[in-house]
Amino acid sequence: MLSRMTDARTPPGDQYVQSLARGLSVITAFDADHPAMTLSDIAARTGLSRATARRFLHTLVELGYVRFDGKQFALTPQVLRLGTAYLSGLGLPQIAQPHLEQLSARLGESTSAAVLDGDEIVYVARVATRRIMTVGITVGTRFPAYATSMGRVLLAGLPAQELDAYLARASLDALTGRTLHDAASLRAELDRVRAQGWALVDQELEAGLRSVAAPLRDGEDRVVAAINVSTSTHAHPELPEGYVDAVVAAARAISADVASAGLRV
Amino acid sequence: MLSRMTDARTPPGDQYVQSLARGLSVITAFDADHPAMTLSDIAARTGLSRATARRFLHTLVELGYVRFDGKQFALTPQVLRLGTAYLSGLGLPQIAQPHLEQLSARLGESTSAAVLDGDEIVYVARVATRRIMTVGITVGTRFPAYATSMGRVLLAGLPAQELDAYLARASLDALTGRTLHDAASLRAELDRVRAQGWALVDQELEAGLRSVAAPLRDGEDRVVAAINVSTSTHAHPELPEGYVDAVVAAARAISADVASAGLRV
Repeated sequence: MLSRMTDARTPPGDQYVQSLARGLSVITAFDADHPAMTLSDIAARTGLSRATARRFLHTLVELGYVRFDGKQFALTPQVLRLGTAYLSGLGLPQIAQPHLEQLSARLGESTSAAVLDGDEIVYVARVATRRIMTVGITVGTRFPAYATSMGRVLLAGLPAQELDAYLARASLDALTGRTLHDAASLRAELDRVRAQGWALVDQELEAGLRSVAAPLRDGEDRVVAAINVSTSTHAHPELPEGYVDAVVAAARAISADVASAGLRV
Repeated sequence: MLSRMTDARTPPGDQYVQSLARGLSVITAFDADHPAMTLSDIAARTGLSRATARRFLHTLVELGYVRFDGKQFALTPQVLRLGTAYLSGLGLPQIAQPHLEQLSARLGESTSAAVLDGDEIVYVARVATRRIMTVGITVGTRFPAYATSMGRVLLAGLPAQELDAYLARASLDALTGRTLHDAASLRAELDRVRAQGWALVDQELEAGLRSVAAPLRDGEDRVVAAINVSTSTHAHPELPEGYVDAVVAAARAISADVASAGLRV
């Protein structure tokens, strides 16, 4: 299984290409609060000298990843090719999408798929049917695993040793008044999630938001991703009957497709 | 306007950081057909020596963008952070999403937003309500501009000189029997699109797929993006009444939000 092998990382040595690390840091220096920056801005945000930052920006402009209007630099849509390389290689979004659309149409709710990346979940597919409170969730959005239904399912699927390490290192914050934020309670909940095969998170990430998730398994029965349905507590004061069964059934159908495709996630 | 300034590119010189270019080529070497590769595979696909490829992979593993299982390398979800840097900086998806969701709910059809990148359109937001023939359209998906309704709207919004250059260089292929694929016919159609304020493409990208698009304009009335609604000719042998008006109205509403946010696209 590829996904848990990042502990093969080693400290910087003579095999480390600093220019690549710095160039990628220039790309990630842009965000919602810094969509366009001057050379000085970028030097300040990356900690690079102006001369060094200029060389990286020059290279990124030439490669088409960055544009320059004579004063400010900004990323171009070509940057999406980098993320697309991951998503299309994953294969999972293509397999899950029609199932998520069916589930979404059947329940009239938004559905998603996510994988675990370190201590966060990352959305890799999403079908949004209506505006919910947490707007702007899209492929690539991240949330802390412990406070989300998909994260609980993914954490519950970790090998025991990896889960122990997670619980020892994770900083668990009370994001709402309802968030489970001590390791012992979280571990007990994850045991329950593992036994029942699904997770319910009720306003632990955000007030008014309730979500049910179930695991996606590969051909060797390993939990490789999760799907969920999210709903508003205003629209439904109680979790509507049938939601859990529908999510679990959709997850089983996707898992069967994943296994028959021989997909490695 | 930043988006058309990539002609500031210059040929490689002493300001060019080859290590960055090569490192990015290692990331883009992964795709749907090559989701996991050995060192030899990657060296072959990038044209790098094994020793050089090893150094870049080592660096990417250390930075968390690539994982290694002892035999094969694969991208990690962290790569999505690079694409997310572009999308969150753009701001447009956040502004457009609720409007697209409303439009999608009202018509019962999939809606999308896209920008122009060179000769292609790139999806930056999407609300998928049902499975259409072209599956797997997601944020980051690209199509040739000339054969899509959003592309027609974006091309019609180009300054005259840029449109001339596009028409001179673009290779126009008949993707279906209906595709406009000579420059003179395309130019005439773009004139019509510009005058009427929307574009209809009827099975020119793919048989059975019909799409209507309208332009998104910034505060200075420049076309910066497009939205569309796509529908199946099987579900609707004729374009349903009201679709054009609904798309044009949604595009006006998003444009007003873009202008009042002072968004630079």
